Amino acid sequence: MLRGSTKFERPDAAVVEQLSALSSATIHEAQGRLGALDSTIKPVDHRMSLCGSAFTVQCAPRDNLMLQTAIAYVRPGDVIVVSAGAYEEAGSFGDVLANACQAKGLGGLITDTGVRDTEDLRALGLPVFSRSVSIKGTVKETIGPMCEPVTIGGVLVHPGDVMRADADGVVVVRREDAAEVVTASQERDDAEAGYISAYRAGKTVIEICNLTPLLAAKGLVIEE
Amino acid sequence: MLRGSTKFERPDAAVVEQLSALSSATIHEAQGRLGALDSTIKPVDHRMSLCGSAFTVQCAPRDNLMLQTAIAYVRPGDVIVVSAGAYEEAGSFGDVLANACQAKGLGGLITDTGVRDTEDLRALGLPVFSRSVSIKGTVKETIGPMCEPVTIGGVLVHPGDVMRADADGVVVVRREDAAEVVTASQERDDAEAGYISAYRAGKTVIEICNLTPLLAAKGLVIEE
Amino acid sequence: MLRGSTKFERPDAAVVEQLSALSSATIHEAQGRLGALDSTIKPVDHRMSLCGSAFTVQCAPRDNLMLQTAIAYVRPGDVIVVSAGAYEEAGSFGDVLANACQAKGLGGLITDTGVRDTEDLRALGLPVFSRSVSIKGTVKETIGPMCEPVTIGGVLVHPGDVMRADADGVVVVRREDAAEVVTASQERDDAEAGYISAYRAGKTVIEICNLTPLLAAKGLVIEE
Amino acid sequence: MLRGSTKFERPDAAVVEQLSALSSATIHEAQGRLGALDSTIKPVDHRMSLCGSAFTVQCAPRDNLMLQTAIAYVRPGDVIVVSAGAYEEAGSFGDVLANACQAKGLGGLITDTGVRDTEDLRALGLPVFSRSVSIKGTVKETIGPMCEPVTIGGVLVHPGDVMRADADGVVVVRREDAAEVVTASQERDDAEAGYISAYRAGKTVIEICNLTPLLAAKGLVIEE
Amino acid sequence: MLRGSTKFERPDAAVVEQLSALSSATIHEAQGRLGALDSTIKPVDHRMSLCGSAFTVQCAPRDNLMLQTAIAYVRPGDVIVVSAGAYEEAGSFGDVLANACQAKGLGGLITDTGVRDTEDLRALGLPVFSRSVSIKGTVKETIGPMCEPVTIGGVLVHPGDVMRADADGVVVVRREDAAEVVTASQERDDAEAGYISAYRAGKTVIEICNLTPLLAAKGLVIEE
Amino acid sequence: MLRGSTKFERPDAAVVEQLSALSSATIHEAQGRLGALDSTIKPVDHRMSLCGSAFTVQCAPRDNLMLQTAIAYVRPGDVIVVSAGAYEEAGSFGDVLANACQAKGLGGLITDTGVRDTEDLRALGLPVFSRSVSIKGTVKETIGPMCEPVTIGGVLVHPGDVMRADADGVVVVRREDAAEVVTASQERDDAEAGYISAYRAGKTVIEICNLTPLLAAKGLVIEE
Repeated sequence: MLRGSTKFERPDAAVVEQLSALSSATIHEAQGRLGALDSTIKPVDHRMSLCGSAFTVQCAPRDNLMLQTAIAYVRPGDVIVVSAGAYEEAGSFGDVLANACQAKGLGGLITDTGVRDTEDLRALGLPVFSRSVSIKGTVKETIGPMCEPVTIGGVLVHPGDVMRADADGVVVVRREDAAEVVTASQERDDAEAGYISAYRAGKTVIEICNLTPLLAAKGLVIEE
Repeated sequence: MLRGSTKFERPDAAVVEQLSALSSATIHEAQGRLGALDSTIKPVDHRMSLCGSAFTVQCAPRDNLMLQTAIAYVRPGDVIVVSAGAYEEAGSFGDVLANACQAKGLGGLITDTGVRDTEDLRALGLPVFSRSVSIKGTVKETIGPMCEPVTIGGVLVHPGDVMRADADGVVVVRREDAAEVVTASQERDDAEAGYISAYRAGKTVIEICNLTPLLAAKGLVIEE
Repeated sequence: MLRGSTKFERPDAAVVEQLSALSSATIHEAQGRLGALDSTIKPVDHRMSLCGSAFTVQCAPRDNLMLQTAIAYVRPGDVIVVSAGAYEEAGSFGDVLANACQAKGLGGLITDTGVRDTEDLRALGLPVFSRSVSIKGTVKETIGPMCEPVTIGGVLVHPGDVMRADADGVVVVRREDAAEVVTASQERDDAEAGYISAYRAGKTVIEICNLTPLLAAKGLVIEE
Repeated sequence: MLRGSTKFERPDAAVVEQLSALSSATIHEAQGRLGALDSTIKPVDHRMSLCGSAFTVQCAPRDNLMLQTAIAYVRPGDVIVVSAGAYEEAGSFGDVLANACQAKGLGGLITDTGVRDTEDLRALGLPVFSRSVSIKGTVKETIGPMCEPVTIGGVLVHPGDVMRADADGVVVVRREDAAEVVTASQERDDAEAGYISAYRAGKTVIEICNLTPLLAAKGLVIEE
Repeated sequence: MLRGSTKFERPDAAVVEQLSALSSATIHEAQGRLGALDSTIKPVDHRMSLCGSAFTVQCAPRDNLMLQTAIAYVRPGDVIVVSAGAYEEAGSFGDVLANACQAKGLGGLITDTGVRDTEDLRALGLPVFSRSVSIKGTVKETIGPMCEPVTIGGVLVHPGDVMRADADGVVVVRREDAAEVVTASQERDDAEAGYISAYRAGKTVIEICNLTPLLAAKGLVIEE
Repeated sequence: MLRGSTKFERPDAAVVEQLSALSSATIHEAQGRLGALDSTIKPVDHRMSLCGSAFTVQCAPRDNLMLQTAIAYVRPGDVIVVSAGAYEEAGSFGDVLANACQAKGLGGLITDTGVRDTEDLRALGLPVFSRSVSIKGTVKETIGPMCEPVTIGGVLVHPGDVMRADADGVVVVRREDAAEVVTASQERDDAEAGYISAYRAGKTVIEICNLTPLLAAKGLVIEE
């Protein structure tokens, strides 16, 4: 007998809101280069973007029983995170389930297997990040853990962690670190805005990155 | 001496028309999960879509002699299906041949090797599904079978089978099964439309998929 | 002590202009099928296109110190060519450096590793060709050659060679061959335009490619 | 209701014996470069080798129900050919089934998915060719065709075709062509033995392949 | 400031000893098909085998500073588990460190990046499981967690979990479950020995797996 | 008209002899981590090893005309280096050409495409390094450069450079640097022998690598 929980602490809504204004790349840097999923997990369309609490579920490869189950228990704004063995040749999620998700106000879906009905996903505006697009269906045979930690794209995700995904990829922020990561990310964004202004004002990489002494220390002399 | 035929029975035009209104994923499910090409064969642009009779041809890798030959013999609405060893680093089809195809009213092209001049293909509106995009040209050295069964993307295609391809992928329907597959696909579409309406009306996955007894039978108890 | 040069002969501006009007595939064919980078190096967006003098640099994998250094020394119109070990899981270039490049009038960037901030790259209109998109940052530890020949995507690129890239891929033209390649490419384009007109006017592949005797010589007889 | 046949015509035993003395590469060449499975299907150990009648079966990915069923019906010397979706992360065959196969005098097994217990397979001496080695088990849920044509490694195999596999790979010979292929292969072997003797006796590639006029005709002049 | 622990509870030595007599595949099955690392992590030589307590460490890709640090703190019989970004083109471990490990009585090493000096590893008899073999060295720049949970090959490993690896692959057993897994594995081994004996005694798959009613229930009727 | 040269300066025989006693990994490190071919190019058998002057040749993918030509012009001890588009599904070299090579005293062959007749290669003792093993033959259609610089496995090789390959991989040493690389490699070997002795005598990584201050400087404090 396996017991599937649906209870976990969700992140603070205000913090999720703040993270949604920051890019996945900035967040990844700001939290010490942690939490980036492999680059093989990508948006169905580069205009898709999401930010919300992870609702985790473990599926067997080519089996979406637990994904379907998860949809029954998500709350508005949640992001379903499906670990399913990184199998490319299965479309585990399509237009019917997408409509079920929309009806529940889901924030999006991230999976390491494939999805299908991608033109419908575009039309619905549901942000979906997957490893592949495949028309091959899945079975509904195997139970597995729900709302437990899962590994996906090489990282560990706990239920209640914040998932942030955009055109560049996906990053997970630990729930307990999220407020601190917002601050660090905003500082990084501010610093980068400053660099960008400086470049637009005509400053050079040499000046801004103080390259000359750095290169000299490493043994490189540039002949101009 | 190799004899290349150009004669084969084409599918019923009305059935092709009906299949063109159904998605590749729906058809794949409706015919018992058969006939899906590997997900590595994908449209040059996600807005491309095709449906038509397979005109099959076998090329050597990095050689498009038989593809060129096929263009000479296709009929309006046919879809050329090129099996060429799944080689990624060759652009076997480009703007010149695309114009030749357009002039003949070709329905589209599906290949397990690469193509090029993809912006022209977009502009022409010719639907092309390939394994890769490559600028490297092909030679014209090797003869091979035409209008014979070929394997592509892991499945067998006979000349006269119906090819249906869209943003999600490619499926082949046996000519002799096509009418039956239309019926089964439409039934599936109707059923799915019903599910979607139900979800939009507020029904849950639990209700629609009757999940609770299914999960209990498999040994999963959900703690809400 | 490593000495990094920034001096090399750039190609003739008029020739670069002429090459920019020709497609990567046409150029590749016209120069004898040489100089095509592997098809794994592709544009961030299929509407991106570039043509300019190669400014070469060698980075260690997951290290962008020398890319940053290169930006300091490029001239308007140059295309930075970064060889970095074909590593997919690193985003070596993003919005800050892209702004630095725009400020200097860079012609574009080609790399065999990943980039990030791709929506910003689209918005800026800076053409970038890479092997992947990744949010994972790079270190700035390792010096290496600049403005020396590098291998990328399976081909050798010298500083001052002309890089031409579009939706289909990337080709390098040796600086000393560039004028000759323009002529050969234009001749090929003219010939292809003739073929296209002929196809549109109703000529067949059989006529234009003189297929029947060619196939017969190879031993294929078509039964119509 | 699916009807699974176990009846098909097996190849002539004497011809199978003759093919077993010829290498997979020689046979592939001798039958016109047809029938080679992709190089991703390889022996568990390079000393493994097999030759026998194909007993075909189609499994769902990560499901070995039909492989198990096939074992019940094979005859001594048969080679089970399992098409299972080219899935790498499943070990569909191990020591228990290998013992069942040995007891029935099976000639070997070829699959496009994974196997496990490979040290036992080595010890038993049962020749097994697979796409991967994986400890992850399979389910027994899905029925499928048996003794029907299957595609595997990019080629079509009919029940009763001859499978020949060795350290270099796997080739299928159509049952109806087998005798003719033996003759052509032996002629090729004889010719190659002659070349080898000539090389050992000091002849050069120039002489044996008559390279100089061939290269000159293609436009290559060697400066020695 | 990062604090690196070296303290964790190791598994019971007797249980480790018992697990070492069981195969990775059997253990994986017996614990409910959990804990298998991806099949891309494989032994340097198929005769290598290990069983011991996980000593976990997180390295940056192409950086072995923390692996070197781990060697300083391991205890006899430990197995170092290195998560390093699944990077193939780096040889992070070779003969010098292998000798350091041998001197400390290490049980073996498992990594998702590459190793080198593989002939020395064979000669030393140190069991090493890696994703690749590469001569390219690593840097020693980046600190990271040690004796903390890591993800490797798609699974989570805690320090003190038991690693069991052989020719077929690698499985991790949670320390707290290890005794129970031994029992379940031995039961499975006993059952499999029974099946093997039965097959050798002439029983068929039909009898042992009770296939006929199972297939009939699923809708397959075999025509013999 | 293409002119193929066969003349180039070979490396000093004594230096080649000295390099043959050094491992590929040691040489790669000693020359500043340059010249390593991608790890996808590997020996047919891990006991194979070679060292000799590069005789370079460029083939079209799936075409071995220029490889055959090269065999005509090599000198004893040379190593043929074939760049052929990194195509996996072709066996460009087998037992007949291997015998031709043996008769000429060839030092070995390195290619980025496939080879076949691998059991014969083992029996002959000819060291061969390739990207794959494939039974599919090649054509003899395309001329190309010989004894010109080629790119292979991501690096540039000039004729007359020294190729050193063993179980771990392949490295190229520039002819003009070879003597210096011998010295640097031997120094590295001596240093490593010292470390190994120290480890065997009971010294720890902490002592030998002086880890404690290094880690502290980077911000890691180990709690023992």
